[in-house]
Amino acid sequence: MSAQTLINTLADTARAAGRTLSTATGAQRKAALQTIADAIEARSVEILAANAKDMEAGRSAGLNSSLLDRLLLTPERVQGIAGGARQVSELPDPLGITLRQSTLPNGIKLEQISVPFGVIGMVYEARPNVTVDAAVILLMSGNAALLRGSSSASHSNEILVRVMCDALATTSISPDVIQLVPSEDRETVKALLNARGKVDLVIPRGSAALIRMVVDESTVPTIETGAGVCHVYIDEFADLSKALPIIINSKVQRPSVCNAAETLLLHTAIAQEFAPVALKALHEAGVIVHADAATLVIAQNAGIPATLATDENFCTEYGTLEINVAIVDSVDAASAHIAKYGTQHTEAIISENKENVKRFIALADCAAVMVNTSTRFTDGEQMGFGAEIGISNQKLHARGPMGLEAMTTTTWIVTGDGQIRS
Amino acid sequence: MSAQTLINTLADTARAAGRTLSTATGAQRKAALQTIADAIEARSVEILAANAKDMEAGRSAGLNSSLLDRLLLTPERVQGIAGGARQVSELPDPLGITLRQSTLPNGIKLEQISVPFGVIGMVYEARPNVTVDAAVILLMSGNAALLRGSSSASHSNEILVRVMCDALATTSISPDVIQLVPSEDRETVKALLNARGKVDLVIPRGSAALIRMVVDESTVPTIETGAGVCHVYIDEFADLSKALPIIINSKVQRPSVCNAAETLLLHTAIAQEFAPVALKALHEAGVIVHADAATLVIAQNAGIPATLATDENFCTEYGTLEINVAIVDSVDAASAHIAKYGTQHTEAIISENKENVKRFIALADCAAVMVNTSTRFTDGEQMGFGAEIGISNQKLHARGPMGLEAMTTTTWIVTGDGQIRS
Repeated sequence: MSAQTLINTLADTARAAGRTLSTATGAQRKAALQTIADAIEARSVEILAANAKDMEAGRSAGLNSSLLDRLLLTPERVQGIAGGARQVSELPDPLGITLRQSTLPNGIKLEQISVPFGVIGMVYEARPNVTVDAAVILLMSGNAALLRGSSSASHSNEILVRVMCDALATTSISPDVIQLVPSEDRETVKALLNARGKVDLVIPRGSAALIRMVVDESTVPTIETGAGVCHVYIDEFADLSKALPIIINSKVQRPSVCNAAETLLLHTAIAQEFAPVALKALHEAGVIVHADAATLVIAQNAGIPATLATDENFCTEYGTLEINVAIVDSVDAASAHIAKYGTQHTEAIISENKENVKRFIALADCAAVMVNTSTRFTDGEQMGFGAEIGISNQKLHARGPMGLEAMTTTTWIVTGDGQIRS
Repeated sequence: MSAQTLINTLADTARAAGRTLSTATGAQRKAALQTIADAIEARSVEILAANAKDMEAGRSAGLNSSLLDRLLLTPERVQGIAGGARQVSELPDPLGITLRQSTLPNGIKLEQISVPFGVIGMVYEARPNVTVDAAVILLMSGNAALLRGSSSASHSNEILVRVMCDALATTSISPDVIQLVPSEDRETVKALLNARGKVDLVIPRGSAALIRMVVDESTVPTIETGAGVCHVYIDEFADLSKALPIIINSKVQRPSVCNAAETLLLHTAIAQEFAPVALKALHEAGVIVHADAATLVIAQNAGIPATLATDENFCTEYGTLEINVAIVDSVDAASAHIAKYGTQHTEAIISENKENVKRFIALADCAAVMVNTSTRFTDGEQMGFGAEIGISNQKLHARGPMGLEAMTTTTWIVTGDGQIRS
């Protein structure tokens, strides 16, 4: 069987099974998720045993310690996966919400309601928890799931899917709504990306290379989750006592994630006073500084090590304790820098001046603008969504952290009493 | 200059000019549209003269009468274009709308607001009115426009864009927010579709072949506007006195458009009584009938000409006075037929039974479900949107008729007072 035939078959099976989801009540979907959570806890020994096989294969294959850590399941992590499923089950039902309604002059009633996409494909990398996290978010939002994880996690993913399907078999929802896509070869990914009419949406989660590949090759609509080159701009009207902790938090608290800051922009009016303070604090926190020419002079005068930042530095999502610092002379100049180097993820302004904040927002063109707070808050859990399937880095459909709601589309229900168009 | 360099340059120019749009007030955008409408009226002689050149070239090139009619501008049509721009200017401002807001336990305020996409590319065919219709919708929603029309309309499109840009030159909005993409060769379309990071969204409007090409070749996110194989299902609990006018209206009122019906599904319980009536009325309205085996027997007994419908018939968007008729034995069977042959556009149910309507809706998987009314109502103007840039036939972002609102994305404004993440 060709990879495309395989994927089409899996998608057809998932779609047919999906009818049990689109006709299920919210209470039935909620109960199904709780059954899944219970099953994951009850069968944690099996899950850990399968994961041990992946870990052993990963060590033999020479995976680095960071990848091995992502792959690893522990009793606590399995507990956490079950807890996540239970948490999603307790969120408000995202389906059947009336988003807009009106009555037309001819008496026809219009109602726009939220409905599932249908069949959603997830393409992701090593972490096996994504298998359950994604499946429960998709199920709760009424969608059948085609899950394509990494071959390095194949044993873990297989047992997790089996446990979820076995659990669903005891409910009104067909176990076939979750389909694990074989991960041995890349052809299944390509087939998934080209299953137009069979798969409604594909969401890639992983490296920039993976996401670029998905965008290039997909004929199925996709939502990119992507890189964050986030900026913190300290305005001339900043409260500098707020600015410093926000800079440190944005850069240092968890540098490996997409909402960490990569570049600090200082307004020229506060740079002479504030740059030495900020650079010293960053240096003491272990952050390597890449400075523009003006900042470099300040750093040298203050005796703080720094290198001259290149264009490449300003484009880089470090993921580590490194930061770029540049001096700008206005909100517009900060915005122009961000437009040139940013990735439209999260941009922060620290300012007490409402007009400057307003202009920064109007020019920001990103998923989230932080006003006097840390870039680290662009996060589904922090923002109270309860669950997050990823952070959309594109403008189409959903932008920023995506929870249950982002996994729904809409339909118009147009109710008449025999009206025809004249 | 390569086509890609050209498109990137046009997009960069449009984006830079777009800053005058993203910082403009709704009143300024509204006034700009009114200035455009006035200019189109004032310069209609020039516009008609340019259109005459396209018409002459079209006749020489042997374009068929339908294409020539699409290409043609008349004084009334030019008036209509100006009127359309004025109408859009009077719609509520779609920008800066607060879609969701909340305050987190840490005191941070979350607000999700509507913002422009930035730069939107339109790829369309012969009708020159689309040049203005699209430009004014994009401008009113704060977006810069890259317009790629048909080479057959090049003189008309050039003068229309020049008139709009000249009008903008008298306002606070930069004329560069409207860019006409040269239409001489196909390379500019491909370059537009691959201007990732330069163009935020591409919307194709036109033939199925054009849309398929856009979907296949685009790395920029797209919204498909597409084909409609729409069904009317007459349930066993239908009020047949409503059913007949709805069937005729859905098929006959304007068969060439995407929301016209192509297939009539009859519940077996009413088929013996109702099929002869419906087939007779369709026949008298000049509609050619393609019937499934069961319906064919009824047609023959009633002396109404009909041919046996093939799988290909059921997949076809006729765009003409032809219809398929089939008999089904339940809502589920109707839904299964629709799932197999439909294009997820508009599906109608005629029924007085609430449970059956509910189940039909749950299984419909389309942009609009019509309950006891005509499929012809899936239309932005009919639905009160005031303007329509197309009907989305996909699930991502916008589904169904797209007005101003569909041309916006969102951003999160996260306002704190120095909060950091712990």
